[in-house]
Amino acid sequence: MLFSEYFVPTLREVKEESLSFRLSLKAGLIAALASGIYSYLPLGLRVLKKIEAIIRKHMDNTGALEVLLPALQPLDLWKKTQRDELLAEVMVRFQDRRGRKLCLGPTHEEVITDLVARFVSSYKQLPLILYQIQTKFRDEVRPRAGLIRSCEFVMKDAYSFDIDEKNLQKNYQNMYSAYNSIFSECGLRTIAMEADPGFIGGSISHEFLAEGPSGEDVVFFCDKCNIYFKEKEECPQCNSRKFKEKRALELGHIFNLGTKYSEKLDAFFLDKEGRRSPVIMGCYGIGVSRIISAVIEQNCDKEGIIWPKEISPFDLELVCLNSDDKDLFSFSSRIYRILSDKGLEVLFDQRAESIGVKLNDAYLLGMPYLVIVGRKNFLEGKIEIITRSNKERILVDKERLVEALSELTDK
Amino acid sequence: MLFSEYFVPTLREVKEESLSFRLSLKAGLIAALASGIYSYLPLGLRVLKKIEAIIRKHMDNTGALEVLLPALQPLDLWKKTQRDELLAEVMVRFQDRRGRKLCLGPTHEEVITDLVARFVSSYKQLPLILYQIQTKFRDEVRPRAGLIRSCEFVMKDAYSFDIDEKNLQKNYQNMYSAYNSIFSECGLRTIAMEADPGFIGGSISHEFLAEGPSGEDVVFFCDKCNIYFKEKEECPQCNSRKFKEKRALELGHIFNLGTKYSEKLDAFFLDKEGRRSPVIMGCYGIGVSRIISAVIEQNCDKEGIIWPKEISPFDLELVCLNSDDKDLFSFSSRIYRILSDKGLEVLFDQRAESIGVKLNDAYLLGMPYLVIVGRKNFLEGKIEIITRSNKERILVDKERLVEALSELTDK
Repeated sequence: MLFSEYFVPTLREVKEESLSFRLSLKAGLIAALASGIYSYLPLGLRVLKKIEAIIRKHMDNTGALEVLLPALQPLDLWKKTQRDELLAEVMVRFQDRRGRKLCLGPTHEEVITDLVARFVSSYKQLPLILYQIQTKFRDEVRPRAGLIRSCEFVMKDAYSFDIDEKNLQKNYQNMYSAYNSIFSECGLRTIAMEADPGFIGGSISHEFLAEGPSGEDVVFFCDKCNIYFKEKEECPQCNSRKFKEKRALELGHIFNLGTKYSEKLDAFFLDKEGRRSPVIMGCYGIGVSRIISAVIEQNCDKEGIIWPKEISPFDLELVCLNSDDKDLFSFSSRIYRILSDKGLEVLFDQRAESIGVKLNDAYLLGMPYLVIVGRKNFLEGKIEIITRSNKERILVDKERLVEALSELTDK
Repeated sequence: MLFSEYFVPTLREVKEESLSFRLSLKAGLIAALASGIYSYLPLGLRVLKKIEAIIRKHMDNTGALEVLLPALQPLDLWKKTQRDELLAEVMVRFQDRRGRKLCLGPTHEEVITDLVARFVSSYKQLPLILYQIQTKFRDEVRPRAGLIRSCEFVMKDAYSFDIDEKNLQKNYQNMYSAYNSIFSECGLRTIAMEADPGFIGGSISHEFLAEGPSGEDVVFFCDKCNIYFKEKEECPQCNSRKFKEKRALELGHIFNLGTKYSEKLDAFFLDKEGRRSPVIMGCYGIGVSRIISAVIEQNCDKEGIIWPKEISPFDLELVCLNSDDKDLFSFSSRIYRILSDKGLEVLFDQRAESIGVKLNDAYLLGMPYLVIVGRKNFLEGKIEIITRSNKERILVDKERLVEALSELTDK
């Protein structure tokens, strides 16, 4: 992709307090339409899609099947679980022209349980795991920190349906492992801990948190035991009261729902002996758009973002330091074509901008590798590769560039 | 994918009048949550994603950049173009807890023009084409025919921004060609004709229609001249009054918007001479979910759907006629693994159902090729391949199966 033909409206000054929000706006990943309402610009959307692809891969591995449920939902369905009252404040509601009372789904337990109630009737159809990656709406009275708490956001929500608790446990464990794999593949260090099920309900639940300065939760960390804990006055392992307070952001939450929803929404099945039993459910959520913020908070420095390879919008940025220099420009263009043909995703900064502007932008946008084509090295047949994370610079012979980059990017 | 582990709730009896709606429900592509509100089940979502991939490919080829805009929009923005009144009936509106007046975007001209107004200021940043594939909401008083007119649907909307009319014309022509390629790649025969710009506005517009019994528009067709026309009493070419009336469904619409939105939303740029001018805009929509209905109406018979290869949920369905027959079952399973390893997308019906049920379902679901493994042929070392469209049956030696199928599927 040629930088001059791309749409990356970077900003020099942004006043937002949150680290990830500030960098998201500065690097042109997102743009605010109103408080709590954001547009994904091309660079931000590329990151979102890569995260979604990682999530899909791991969901499919658990045997979950992808569906897409409506955002519009009849309020009647929510009355059956009394959650129309429990979620009254955050739920956007309206009456349509035909007089129907509808809401915008802040979550989908009711809709999915109703679907399964209509189509599943026998143990032979179970286990079943359904998931979707879909836009949710919440009337947040205090949206904050950009994608961290917004009124419209992308979630992955999965729901498992089993004949008994033992089978649910297996699915729950598989999801627990899948979540760890997803977050680590996105370049995140996360903490899993038992949690309060809150308005979703059920018995056991675990949440997955990422440390980061814009986090909404507080967790405690004991250096000595290397463990995290919550709401306790001392380390649960060594009983020491010397522990660190850290901010963390909830990225995922998994729930053992039992029969809470299936009983109320009539999702029953006939077992092998012909007995009618409520389906045993689990539910598993990930804040997809929020992952972008968490990744940025854990992977940045004062110059900008440092994308982990797996979710970086491009594999590398190629910078021609002086686009007026015809030899340099045509040489850079040739490199661009060669790398693109090799299947590498390259952002090629060939703009008629100063060296300073280009390098500043390259560090701000944060592709894992910066390939710098400058006059002096060019004359010596060399090209510079900067690893964004540690700013390590290496000079390679131009004949060895492709090889060096495929080693670095694993492509 | 194993049929027994998949979620395909087929239905025997469906009362809906519309041909495509009936088949979508019978084949378990979608499920109704309420009138005009549908869930995509796994099979339907696979089709939707393949259509989206075709659209993305052709949009990217025009140089358009993908973004994702919010469904939530401040009503104030719509007041600037007075379209809050024009679209009052179909627009879902509400006030949030902070007292903001918001609506759910039935379309995105205002939001995108506002975005460009904020970030584009110079001719150097133009041309620019942005597109998204996103969920739209319309308060339809008469939703009909399933995905054809629903309250929540997937649209592709693209917007071009140019310095002058000549450049807009070029983008308009490119989009026109891209639209023809998209529809034809989806397996559709479409008609492009000049149209009334309606509430979107602007000067010239063209719509793309697909013939089909559930279509909402009426077009006329002159057999002799082989042309379609609208609202005329005679064929515009031969003046004959002997023409056929046909029903057609609008799938796409492209508009020359001129400066209608840019002037009202302050999207101006400085040209080479430093003069301030409004950006010249075009907009280009495709009803993505609606394509599914149009494809079904043009590609079906009394047994069910006949998916065009390019958007078929699977490349083929493999049917083991008798799953109780151990030899037959293990032979079918081996074929399943071999074909899957070759990169073919295979739906493997290994259910303990009767031959009749399995073949009925295979014809209803409509994968382009059915690979039938039956006892008699198996003993002779043969496998039957049925081409779903013309029901042609061929027998191939089992050693030649992979070769025969990769010839047929081009994979």
